Amino acid sequence: MTLDQLQSKFEEFKAKKLALDMSRGKPSAAQLDLSNGLLDTVSSTDYKTITDADTRNYGGLDGIPEAKELFKDFLEVSTVDEVVIGGNASLTIMHDIVSRGMTHGMCDSKQAWGKSKIKFICPSPGYDRHFSICQHFGIEMIPVSCTPGGPNMDEVEQLVANDESIKGIWIVPKYSNPTGLSCSDEVVDRLSAMKTAANDFRVFWDNAYAVHHLSEDKDKLKNILDTCKEAGNENRPFILCSTSKITFAGAGVSAVGGSVANMDWFKGHLFFSTIGPDKLNQVRHTRFFKNIEGLHEHMKKHAALLKPRFDKTLAILEQELGGTSLATWTKPKGGYFISFNVSNGCAKRVVALAAEAGVKLTGAGATYPHKNDPNDSNIRLAPSCPTIEEIEQAMQIVCLAVKIAAIETGVVKDLVHN
Amino acid sequence: MTLDQLQSKFEEFKAKKLALDMSRGKPSAAQLDLSNGLLDTVSSTDYKTITDADTRNYGGLDGIPEAKELFKDFLEVSTVDEVVIGGNASLTIMHDIVSRGMTHGMCDSKQAWGKSKIKFICPSPGYDRHFSICQHFGIEMIPVSCTPGGPNMDEVEQLVANDESIKGIWIVPKYSNPTGLSCSDEVVDRLSAMKTAANDFRVFWDNAYAVHHLSEDKDKLKNILDTCKEAGNENRPFILCSTSKITFAGAGVSAVGGSVANMDWFKGHLFFSTIGPDKLNQVRHTRFFKNIEGLHEHMKKHAALLKPRFDKTLAILEQELGGTSLATWTKPKGGYFISFNVSNGCAKRVVALAAEAGVKLTGAGATYPHKNDPNDSNIRLAPSCPTIEEIEQAMQIVCLAVKIAAIETGVVKDLVHN
Repeated sequence: MTLDQLQSKFEEFKAKKLALDMSRGKPSAAQLDLSNGLLDTVSSTDYKTITDADTRNYGGLDGIPEAKELFKDFLEVSTVDEVVIGGNASLTIMHDIVSRGMTHGMCDSKQAWGKSKIKFICPSPGYDRHFSICQHFGIEMIPVSCTPGGPNMDEVEQLVANDESIKGIWIVPKYSNPTGLSCSDEVVDRLSAMKTAANDFRVFWDNAYAVHHLSEDKDKLKNILDTCKEAGNENRPFILCSTSKITFAGAGVSAVGGSVANMDWFKGHLFFSTIGPDKLNQVRHTRFFKNIEGLHEHMKKHAALLKPRFDKTLAILEQELGGTSLATWTKPKGGYFISFNVSNGCAKRVVALAAEAGVKLTGAGATYPHKNDPNDSNIRLAPSCPTIEEIEQAMQIVCLAVKIAAIETGVVKDLVHN
Repeated sequence: MTLDQLQSKFEEFKAKKLALDMSRGKPSAAQLDLSNGLLDTVSSTDYKTITDADTRNYGGLDGIPEAKELFKDFLEVSTVDEVVIGGNASLTIMHDIVSRGMTHGMCDSKQAWGKSKIKFICPSPGYDRHFSICQHFGIEMIPVSCTPGGPNMDEVEQLVANDESIKGIWIVPKYSNPTGLSCSDEVVDRLSAMKTAANDFRVFWDNAYAVHHLSEDKDKLKNILDTCKEAGNENRPFILCSTSKITFAGAGVSAVGGSVANMDWFKGHLFFSTIGPDKLNQVRHTRFFKNIEGLHEHMKKHAALLKPRFDKTLAILEQELGGTSLATWTKPKGGYFISFNVSNGCAKRVVALAAEAGVKLTGAGATYPHKNDPNDSNIRLAPSCPTIEEIEQAMQIVCLAVKIAAIETGVVKDLVHN
């Protein structure tokens, strides 16, 4: 097709005045419905813990026993002393750990992080909220590239070995935001064993999609707390999770896992800021799932809703752009995102064109520190919320935009394919 | 009675092996029962806001509209733009404001508070959790004395006028913890209008007992946001509240009020740490109360449970220590505490003796910065949780302990009275 032909097709889409959204990694209403039963597990006559404790009153800084037990299994740590239950967002836990690092330092810091200029490693593309926390606290971000098995460890190892001011690395280890890919065993081992100039270096292991498989063909993640213990670096990882994309995105339960020293440090700080997280919501969640097997069963219902959406997205990409040199994309086995790389210098234009035709995409560059994608190539696709029909239309438009942008920028002259 | 006689009576109490607790300002189970209906206001088929928004999903950084409306009235601010809804504890909001002050400064700060040594004024006796926050962040605490109408404003005005490093003051303005007394109109006016060397000085107006009257004979608090606006200091107050002692201590809703500039500053920080507080719990609360009148009606049921407990505590004090010079105490019209002053140098001994006889009291000194009561005189009595019978026994023991301690320390030789 020539540019004229593509543009004429594009105008047809524009005339439909669509309003489609593939930007937000949030659950659809149908997914939320799967957990509605949770709202009936607690009532005015039935609200106590399994040990008959009154969840309505003060007490329980780090969670009720059955919630700690459930999240021990979820986080794959060894004991409930390696778990602290949080409020409704793991983002808050991550923010607060960094904030406390800035004002007080970690349990093994020589001084508060805020006393000097510190840096975090930011594998990119990555999760914009991680980068925002760094930016907010004036932490310098060092981007490193991603391989299909996680961050480029050659780069990471060299950086941390020689720079004491590097205090952390952000990683979504399974079905990563936005790549959808998972850390290989080798990456987990190297992250755990690598020598760091800083003795208070931390891996922020944001396992947000730990159980969010699309089918029985699952990625399996090596246990980083175990590997860190074996390497003598047990205080290195903070493992984060939440039920935001399991039950309710706005009213779930979050948790953090790690060494007893890290959990004691965290609880020591919690004492000053809270009387403990909402225990009633912990009761709702533990009654709803009963145990980790119940939670895994529940996730199959999510998969039944999500997989056709991923399949449709990938099918349109393959149909419209397969065999061309205009784009590459990931084929995740779980999570919420597909990472979509268009020709260098085209991502912003594709997002703008899609918007013109009524398709909202995550802003180009959002997946990089300071929203700066040096190649202007990466776009995050989030298929969870739209219907299959909406995805079909939206992805047709996105693919058309990719072709137009490629010709406009001179990447190709015209398109024989399609 | 002689010391021997008192001690023999004391041994009789000890032999009963009692386990009584007058230490914790927490609601009794009967008080919590008053709000059980709240747990049935949301169900698997009925969970949306009045504007039909889906509370289960992401969104709503500063609260759902009906919660903002309710807390606007509760906080007595003018518009919903002067309110931000929090999680289940106002302690978290206060901690986070100070923490953000340390790392970033207020909306009108020249630099982050943590960049230099800063100080807070701590009217004493006061709330230990306020003092803990200061201690945690290395903020120097300057105790000032309390009058029946609030902090000694002569002291306060002189301090803040001359020291730019003084950035805040903690105040529980109504039915204070632990005095049970409320700020006078004059104190509110002077706090609002006083000249401060620091242009980013803040009044932490922790109105934890705003609606917690014991009867129709209520303290009325002048509106500090109004008076601060009139004085041209609209960014001075942060007004805090929660439903911890209205609905559930562990699963309530908190809020902060203040100028639009302060709220925008707070929301700007919130963006980095949360996807918004639990909206479902906001729906439960707003449905349960309907409006501020509903909340006030609800508080009358609390009063019916609390007033007899306060009355009994005060009756035993009067009966056992009235007319002696051994102690003085406050007679609050609301709140959770009675402030009890024994002879100088006796408070620790009284608390220890009471413990020996099975009565747990708040640690002596807990109501002062660094837990240091310079007179060793103040004891906080918390009558909300025990039954009337338990209060009768506990207070008999406390009064006996006061007498024994007074003779032991040579304050008096023996006691003719009683």
